[in-house]
Amino acid sequence: MGTPDEQIYPVATGRAAETVKQHQQPQDLIFYAGWFCPYVQRSWIALEEKGIPYQYKEVNPYKKEKHFLDINPKGLVPAIEYKGKALYESLILCEFFEDAFPEHKPHLLPDDPFDRAYVRLWTDHVAKQIVPAFMRTVMAQEPEKQKENLEEFYKALRTISEKAKGPYFLGEQFSLVDVALAPWVLRDYILAENRGYSREAAGQKWKAYAEKLESRESVLRTQSDKEHYAEIYARYLRNEAQSQAAKAIRAGRSFD
Amino acid sequence: MGTPDEQIYPVATGRAAETVKQHQQPQDLIFYAGWFCPYVQRSWIALEEKGIPYQYKEVNPYKKEKHFLDINPKGLVPAIEYKGKALYESLILCEFFEDAFPEHKPHLLPDDPFDRAYVRLWTDHVAKQIVPAFMRTVMAQEPEKQKENLEEFYKALRTISEKAKGPYFLGEQFSLVDVALAPWVLRDYILAENRGYSREAAGQKWKAYAEKLESRESVLRTQSDKEHYAEIYARYLRNEAQSQAAKAIRAGRSFD
Repeated sequence: MGTPDEQIYPVATGRAAETVKQHQQPQDLIFYAGWFCPYVQRSWIALEEKGIPYQYKEVNPYKKEKHFLDINPKGLVPAIEYKGKALYESLILCEFFEDAFPEHKPHLLPDDPFDRAYVRLWTDHVAKQIVPAFMRTVMAQEPEKQKENLEEFYKALRTISEKAKGPYFLGEQFSLVDVALAPWVLRDYILAENRGYSREAAGQKWKAYAEKLESRESVLRTQSDKEHYAEIYARYLRNEAQSQAAKAIRAGRSFD
Repeated sequence: MGTPDEQIYPVATGRAAETVKQHQQPQDLIFYAGWFCPYVQRSWIALEEKGIPYQYKEVNPYKKEKHFLDINPKGLVPAIEYKGKALYESLILCEFFEDAFPEHKPHLLPDDPFDRAYVRLWTDHVAKQIVPAFMRTVMAQEPEKQKENLEEFYKALRTISEKAKGPYFLGEQFSLVDVALAPWVLRDYILAENRGYSREAAGQKWKAYAEKLESRESVLRTQSDKEHYAEIYARYLRNEAQSQAAKAIRAGRSFD
């Protein structure tokens, strides 16, 4: 018997399936992905947003191809292969796309050095505060713990909402902060259906910002059908998931 | 009665005190620091390495000035004020110095986009693997836990040593990976004296790399007397420290 994660739905569906179909031709940049993974979606949004040519390859996390493991021994997704060399980590990939494809716009980091640092600071807030609180809320089993984690999630959302200029974090400019956050906005219905979360409870500013993020074209183009995400999250909701992030949360370790 | 951290030694000593003395004149860039903090030392090494003009201001963590809290409400160090605006987070500050002072060399990130991403990946290894394992080893109280965490620390050190080209991580070029790591190399005698650590046990490659890092001029110029670090770490060794990092480790939360 395998672990519960092995019965994962194998391919992207919905709008994401169309996007996958359009990116089958060989390119200098190969994007190794798992359709369900929010970290993958970050890098995918960045690629779509910037119109960078890439070849999409779905990685089955339980049957990883030898070539993939040869170039990327940790076997993590998202990963890219660019002219024969591998890189991974969702936010580092996004910065790589900025550096390697400067002619592809929009730029997800502003040109001004101070503004770039400001975007990195708030991307860090997403990575270290918002995402871990989301994960802990999903994985908590006792109602008390669920509530406590949900309050932390609300707090982290209010903090970023207060700083967001609207419609996006920086105002009209779509930036790395938005890219880093959007995949969890798409998945917040999991918390609404199972943990008593509502966007309104985090404030009207959050609700408006979240609605903007989930209707961005690059976000929609990388989204699969909700029912298949729900299958994945069922394992997290029972605290049975075996992903790197799930294991880190359980062990009280850093991840992002 | 205050918390034990309040009896902190108030100012830098040794070589670091000389450096502080040389950076008292007003400048566009004000560096808010705590002489004892390894995160502060990262940004400080970067400033010294690149020869960026800055004014050093010691922040007493228990008597923070109003102006400092006005511009930097979280009150964390390291922080900078640049032309009236504040930024914080050690590695984000280092990237800011790269972006804002491109004429100041050495560049801590290579010019090639792939190499930049590679440096960010290994800086991330320092932040997410090496530093937390160091902290957990210091703070663990049961011998069993101390040993377990020390083994993780060794593992993380061996991983980076295998990739390090020597003398520095990238070879001759001193980079952000080295900056991120050096402050914990200076402090590893705490583990040697209290937790049975030795550099040799992490391998000859680690020993050679660590010796290179601790003798870099920018690292020496930001180093205080060992006895005063030992006073700080005594609180960590008893698991009584109240810093952000100490609290995060205790709560099983992300930090870096």
